[in-house]
Amino acid sequence: MSLVDLSKHVALGIDIGGTNTKFGVVNHRGEVLEKGNIRTDAYPTVEEYINALYEAVAPLIEKHGNERNFDGIGVGAPNANYYTGTIEQAPNLPWKGTIPFAKLIKEKFGLPCTITNDANAAAIGEMLFGAARGMKDFIMITLGTGVGSGIVAGGKLIYGHDGFAGELGHTIVKPGGRKHWSTGSEGCLEAYASATGIAITAKKMRAEFPESILNQYPEESINSKTVHECALKGDPISMEVFRYTGQKLGEALANFVMFSSPEAILLFGGVIKAGDFILKPTKLHMERNLLPIFRNKVKLVFSELDEADAAILGASALVWEK
Amino acid sequence: MSLVDLSKHVALGIDIGGTNTKFGVVNHRGEVLEKGNIRTDAYPTVEEYINALYEAVAPLIEKHGNERNFDGIGVGAPNANYYTGTIEQAPNLPWKGTIPFAKLIKEKFGLPCTITNDANAAAIGEMLFGAARGMKDFIMITLGTGVGSGIVAGGKLIYGHDGFAGELGHTIVKPGGRKHWSTGSEGCLEAYASATGIAITAKKMRAEFPESILNQYPEESINSKTVHECALKGDPISMEVFRYTGQKLGEALANFVMFSSPEAILLFGGVIKAGDFILKPTKLHMERNLLPIFRNKVKLVFSELDEADAAILGASALVWEK
Repeated sequence: MSLVDLSKHVALGIDIGGTNTKFGVVNHRGEVLEKGNIRTDAYPTVEEYINALYEAVAPLIEKHGNERNFDGIGVGAPNANYYTGTIEQAPNLPWKGTIPFAKLIKEKFGLPCTITNDANAAAIGEMLFGAARGMKDFIMITLGTGVGSGIVAGGKLIYGHDGFAGELGHTIVKPGGRKHWSTGSEGCLEAYASATGIAITAKKMRAEFPESILNQYPEESINSKTVHECALKGDPISMEVFRYTGQKLGEALANFVMFSSPEAILLFGGVIKAGDFILKPTKLHMERNLLPIFRNKVKLVFSELDEADAAILGASALVWEK
Repeated sequence: MSLVDLSKHVALGIDIGGTNTKFGVVNHRGEVLEKGNIRTDAYPTVEEYINALYEAVAPLIEKHGNERNFDGIGVGAPNANYYTGTIEQAPNLPWKGTIPFAKLIKEKFGLPCTITNDANAAAIGEMLFGAARGMKDFIMITLGTGVGSGIVAGGKLIYGHDGFAGELGHTIVKPGGRKHWSTGSEGCLEAYASATGIAITAKKMRAEFPESILNQYPEESINSKTVHECALKGDPISMEVFRYTGQKLGEALANFVMFSSPEAILLFGGVIKAGDFILKPTKLHMERNLLPIFRNKVKLVFSELDEADAAILGASALVWEK
């Protein structure tokens, strides 16, 4: 019998967002030993992007690989497919079509690479090190520029038959509703509950209510953050923006609960900085739309992990999970 | 090493519906050796019901138990909880509150008993012996008096943290829409896509269109079957009843696909006798509401099993799965 020193095993976790890419060297205990980042949107081709990523990451691999076993690279990215290792038709990334991402990384870095969708990676991070520790059934909803999701049932991430399960941001919450800026679908959750959706709601509402202090801001600075500032100052229109957003989100969450009956729903991402302005109406409308057997059972909580760390930790954990 | 003759092992599968209870003795190969049924709605208390069930079933157990090992009893019932063995607040059953059903059966019959929701039992039946053989990811939707569902992901039924996962009939497809006759919720799938919902739609539409031959039927005989008869005779209003139903169902299925990305969705129950009248609009509206990465991938098929057998087979399989 041989003893393994887990602290000597490290992996690289990479979290690819539409704007930024964050990465970190993580050990088996979930400690992020070193972090860094590059822009995602500065490279028109995926080859240029991977070259830039390599430049930034190689010194870390060299440094930590000298003293420890560098076991591999885990990546969380929009539309990343766990089964095939490809990123397919990601609307928020600059590279189009089907990209053999895991293969490209493996060739460039000479290390095994596993990828999954960014929200799935965050869900794994929460399950191992965050608010979902010890839970076997939970749903992670990321409320950022878009709305992502990772679903864990019976202790396992749901990947579906093709690796694309968990696109809850694109479920329809209001048939015939607001048109999505990228997919063209009408009334999906992302069109309302993402930061982008909140900005659209806020712009509409401030136009209807000239008395709102939201009208003191230039058009381009209307976003989830400025609406939150105005709500904190007591602006009823800004509060109504979050109430309306929470209603749509709560209605969607009720449907998700009746699907997989999770112990908790974890909310994550920039939008949750609005705190109770968004949480209270979300909870109200979730409960209101649930069958009695589901009521007052599901914990609706904010993520406990630092936003960047959750995805990096989860991505790195993919290396050891495989 | 000892050889076990599987044909010598049998179980009792029981399928409890709001009106009828069907049961069968099933062997390990999925052969229903003998069947029977009693009324569900003729017994005001669950004790009287279980006594009647025992009267009907005891001769079968005695007969088959003499030659074979009688391994146990599996039950599919509305709102049955796999984890606790209870039936809780089932709106379509005559017995209210939380009933310790598995315990009562075990005490009366002296055999181990496992229960699950009726649609879950049907899904297990399809997975072992029907259209979902070999599939690891599929969703079963039962379109009967109500709308039930069983969800299989990664080869496992999704039970959720409390055993109540898979209440897809109660997900909201049209916020603020038609009020459900029993739960009071507004716009749930069951209010449109169940046989009950179809009758409501048909009654509304025939009142609006006096020229429809649906108006030749007395009010109480308007149901999925008579609407199908009229559609077959070319009545455009009856066809529109199914088209509208299929639209609502298809919109709901699109959301389910974006949740668990199944290889197939199996439709099951009395409503599917309408065939293409319901299948075609369902498929159209499902595809229309899917993200491109999900389009033209999901098989939408009717169950291959006899309606009664699927639930009996699935319920009996619970005995050996446990």
